Amino acid sequence: MDGVILMEKAWIYHNSYEEYYRNPFGAVTCDREITLRIAVKCNSKIENILLALKKSKDNTETNLQMNFEENKDNYTIYKVTFKTSINPGLLWYYFIIQVNGDKLFYGNNAKQKGGEGQILNTLPPAYQITVYKKNQTPSWYKEAVFYQIFVDRFHNSCGEGKFLSLKDKSLLHSSWNDSPMYFKNPDGSIKRWNFFGGNLQGIIDKLSYLHDLGINAIYLNPIFEASSNHKYDTGDYKKIDPMFGDEETFRDLCKKANELGINIILDGVFSHTGSDSIYFNKEGSYSEIGAYQSQDSPYYKWFKFSNHPHEYESWWGIGTLPNVHELEPSYVDFIIENDDSVIKHWLKCGAKGWRLDVADEQPDEFIKKIRNAMKEYDPESMLMGEVWEDASNKVSYSELREYFWGDELDSVMNYPFRKTLLEYVLGQKDAENTYIDFMSLFENYPKDIFYSTLNLIGSHDVPRILTLLGDAGTEQNLSDYDKEHYRLNGDQFNLAKKRLKLLTLIQFTFPGMPCIYYGDEVGMEGFSDPYNRGTYPWGKEDYELLTWYKKVIALRKNNKIFINGDWEPVFFNKEVFGYIRKDGEKYAYCIFNRNVWEGSKVKINLKQDGNYINLLNTDEIFNNNNKQIEVLLAPLEGKIISNL
Amino acid sequence: MDGVILMEKAWIYHNSYEEYYRNPFGAVTCDREITLRIAVKCNSKIENILLALKKSKDNTETNLQMNFEENKDNYTIYKVTFKTSINPGLLWYYFIIQVNGDKLFYGNNAKQKGGEGQILNTLPPAYQITVYKKNQTPSWYKEAVFYQIFVDRFHNSCGEGKFLSLKDKSLLHSSWNDSPMYFKNPDGSIKRWNFFGGNLQGIIDKLSYLHDLGINAIYLNPIFEASSNHKYDTGDYKKIDPMFGDEETFRDLCKKANELGINIILDGVFSHTGSDSIYFNKEGSYSEIGAYQSQDSPYYKWFKFSNHPHEYESWWGIGTLPNVHELEPSYVDFIIENDDSVIKHWLKCGAKGWRLDVADEQPDEFIKKIRNAMKEYDPESMLMGEVWEDASNKVSYSELREYFWGDELDSVMNYPFRKTLLEYVLGQKDAENTYIDFMSLFENYPKDIFYSTLNLIGSHDVPRILTLLGDAGTEQNLSDYDKEHYRLNGDQFNLAKKRLKLLTLIQFTFPGMPCIYYGDEVGMEGFSDPYNRGTYPWGKEDYELLTWYKKVIALRKNNKIFINGDWEPVFFNKEVFGYIRKDGEKYAYCIFNRNVWEGSKVKINLKQDGNYINLLNTDEIFNNNNKQIEVLLAPLEGKIISNL
Repeated sequence: MDGVILMEKAWIYHNSYEEYYRNPFGAVTCDREITLRIAVKCNSKIENILLALKKSKDNTETNLQMNFEENKDNYTIYKVTFKTSINPGLLWYYFIIQVNGDKLFYGNNAKQKGGEGQILNTLPPAYQITVYKKNQTPSWYKEAVFYQIFVDRFHNSCGEGKFLSLKDKSLLHSSWNDSPMYFKNPDGSIKRWNFFGGNLQGIIDKLSYLHDLGINAIYLNPIFEASSNHKYDTGDYKKIDPMFGDEETFRDLCKKANELGINIILDGVFSHTGSDSIYFNKEGSYSEIGAYQSQDSPYYKWFKFSNHPHEYESWWGIGTLPNVHELEPSYVDFIIENDDSVIKHWLKCGAKGWRLDVADEQPDEFIKKIRNAMKEYDPESMLMGEVWEDASNKVSYSELREYFWGDELDSVMNYPFRKTLLEYVLGQKDAENTYIDFMSLFENYPKDIFYSTLNLIGSHDVPRILTLLGDAGTEQNLSDYDKEHYRLNGDQFNLAKKRLKLLTLIQFTFPGMPCIYYGDEVGMEGFSDPYNRGTYPWGKEDYELLTWYKKVIALRKNNKIFINGDWEPVFFNKEVFGYIRKDGEKYAYCIFNRNVWEGSKVKINLKQDGNYINLLNTDEIFNNNNKQIEVLLAPLEGKIISNL
Repeated sequence: MDGVILMEKAWIYHNSYEEYYRNPFGAVTCDREITLRIAVKCNSKIENILLALKKSKDNTETNLQMNFEENKDNYTIYKVTFKTSINPGLLWYYFIIQVNGDKLFYGNNAKQKGGEGQILNTLPPAYQITVYKKNQTPSWYKEAVFYQIFVDRFHNSCGEGKFLSLKDKSLLHSSWNDSPMYFKNPDGSIKRWNFFGGNLQGIIDKLSYLHDLGINAIYLNPIFEASSNHKYDTGDYKKIDPMFGDEETFRDLCKKANELGINIILDGVFSHTGSDSIYFNKEGSYSEIGAYQSQDSPYYKWFKFSNHPHEYESWWGIGTLPNVHELEPSYVDFIIENDDSVIKHWLKCGAKGWRLDVADEQPDEFIKKIRNAMKEYDPESMLMGEVWEDASNKVSYSELREYFWGDELDSVMNYPFRKTLLEYVLGQKDAENTYIDFMSLFENYPKDIFYSTLNLIGSHDVPRILTLLGDAGTEQNLSDYDKEHYRLNGDQFNLAKKRLKLLTLIQFTFPGMPCIYYGDEVGMEGFSDPYNRGTYPWGKEDYELLTWYKKVIALRKNNKIFINGDWEPVFFNKEVFGYIRKDGEKYAYCIFNRNVWEGSKVKINLKQDGNYINLLNTDEIFNNNNKQIEVLLAPLEGKIISNL
């Protein structure tokens, strides 16, 4: 695959992306040899080269002597081999070069994305090596195609304007097709919660739809009893919200989903409870004595009162979401350890895993305990974290997080994937930087993790993808009325759909678990919360888009190369990004032109001879001329060129 | 009845309240003799006295010569007798007195309330004589005890959170006991209408409650199809709103109500329609072509477009309430004249009359046509107008209204009654001015009307009576949140209840039809709209208050003296107001002390000898000493002292 624009190689050179300079590539397991090389132009007077190595465990730095290996292509090569510790953690490294009478440093580039570094005469940013404990990843993770459901808005089995159960003093929408909205007091607090009536039976009723679509995993937003419609303010961790159904319905959902090969992941909201809960019981809705009511409450120690009962720590200062001491033994016992702990209880009912809400807010210790309890019950169960950045080196509350070291998360919500792709498709980031962004994740994430990230394009926390892709403009200056009623015009909608097709073609041929936010597959629009939480438009689906989604899901599921195949990214010019997927002798060259107005012609040097076609249009056969093919991409076109 | 504080009689004197000076008292029928007298102190040099008489019909003034009658009690009496015209209208009069070389005028007092007038040397305000055509009033009017129902908030036959039918994009309250509220856009327009689900079947289910309470007439707020919860924005005059039921339910309601002796009066909203209606059809919800949609619409002529379709006249500038040309023949035909006109249709279904919304906005001609159509179908049907002031001399759009001349209204909503009583009970108006206010209405209203006014204390257009009586303070500076949650404290509530008992004791012993705004009888509170439109608190009634209401309703119904008896108001001091009801030899001295802190001792000179007791406490027997009794009133106490 040709066309990559190479810059002239610097006189001192290391590139973490290249196996020659760093072997093995990327994250490595514990107790494993790593070889690093650095090249210095031959006409330099090298006095000494050291590798500065720092371990996250104790933050101490060791300098390793690098040794002359050979002269090659006008460069002198130095090399060092060392072994990673038996404990996981991060390693950081850079080079100290005594050359031509100077002391120079070679370290990571300014963006700290790995790859080619920079020569500095001051301490440089370090390269990262993620060292992790090897755990076998269950194969279903990589093969999963997820569908995220915000339950109140997906399907109401009772019918429009009818409700399985009612909450005190809430508002019920008479029309399924009404807009989502908030009813707030002037101080921003919620005046009344509003409901459309989506429920678990509604999901059961639509399992065949999901199965036809091709998904095989569902991530459910929280479903336990809570006052709100989003249910991140848990009232009772052991009870399905009555508006959604009951435990019986949930068991039935899991059973019927499993029969269709669909696993269900629950949203675990453990860094805070609701204030209107068994545990806090601020409103006195529950019969037990809550922490707010009395310091004698069995739950008093869970919470963080500075002045009982009115002053307490809460999530983002929202009084309805009091934070907990996750490591308080009685809380650990309740959530994780006891025989019928929350974690275990719902796995026993049929859930296949947990998505950990605001993982950054929870101590590593707590997450490890969750993982332990889960794996003990079901080694195939999945623990996925909500993390918005590169989760391999995430620091929260001044602590480096251990998500990927081997004892915590199986997967993360891959928000960086979404951000990079969105910036690329919208023309805000060129193909090279797209390449670098992905390479950086690829380098830092253990491979099993990289192949198991939840590659989302939409979620309940970001605007609807079509709205973003339709150049809707910023919503900040719009009134609530305008935000509620905003719809792309015809041209915008068509542009957005084309971009979404390009974007999903990447999503579904990329390593990791694609995740569809309910309704994105049928053209739902909407700005930020609450407008991104509309009701699924049953009967008003955009069938062209739905057909496309079915096509790309099938493409992925029918060709394991997109699930397990090697992945090697590439960029051709500012507009054209791509990657090679490889599985033995089989190749898929996935290339994408994000330009809205202009086509692009690119040349591909094949690694394997043979007949190549575009998997999206099998009539398109490529003229293989000496292991080179020429590909013409129309504006906003992607092609999957393969010898499969 | 003694104790009235008399001021010294002026040297020129006329008093319209006294039959000696004006005979007959008050309003008179057409073609009837009236005698007026004026008294001038004997030591004056009277040259001439004229009666200046103006007719509303042509606004021309005639001067009638007054003639010396006699000298009496140190005054010279002049008199004139004339006949009222054969056509109804208003007569205004004052006196022109050439005396002691001066030209003086004697006319109505500055408040224009009738009674004793004033001597001026410039043109004075005139006294009013209402001249009306005699119509026999059906007896049920005077005997009616009304109950006003805002249907969405009275009783939901489907149960809490369940709805007979749904409206597109509306909000349904999950809890019957939630607060009423508006959901508005920043520009003040309604964002979503909200519903609690009260309906006609709900009223049927509660007919026995109403019957037990003692009411025998219901005034229903509008019930025809409309977008809003109040339904003053009619969408289809021929259809019961589906959330309330259907025509069958309405017929059933009327039938079952009639079986219990209860008549039903409907709210006729004819000065505007809804914009979302068959006729205007702004939203395109209806299949017919509405006036907004096309100038070819059969309804186009009904509306007042200045620039079709966007600019049109609407009620108070509210775009959802387009005003109509009431006298447009096709409108008159539709509402009034044709065989199945709106007016006739619902009478045929069982209604016993109409309350005319915003009567002031509708031409006299239109109201007369309604009356004609009604009386032709059912001479006993009632036409009641919404008028907020003295309806005998109401001027709207520079036209003197003919409500009481004999061809229009049978009754009006007696807001002046409410205002006067409220000011009296709250200590804002003393007993004398209370007396004057009532006398003024008594003088201006035809007697049959005075005995048939709808004497309301609450309605959907004013704050709940308890809130006003509990010294809640002004609501203007309160936030919506504070208004919604405001409840009287214990002391305030007790004070409010005591005042309400005093007030209702007056209401139920007064001439005219008492009207209870649903829930006032069980302690409902609330500031202005929407807080005055809460849901009836089934199961949480204030039974003490309810018991009191039953008692005063029974008092009225069991003693026709309060329905038909003569009425003579009186005041004793600033605090104590009262009146005498008389029926043949039977008397009821109704006296009330509005003082919160102090009792009052008053003497009553009986007109009829005998044994007198307090009808509210029959153990209380009065010591009749030479036709005089002494009555002690506790703070906020009223007594009904009678020889019945």
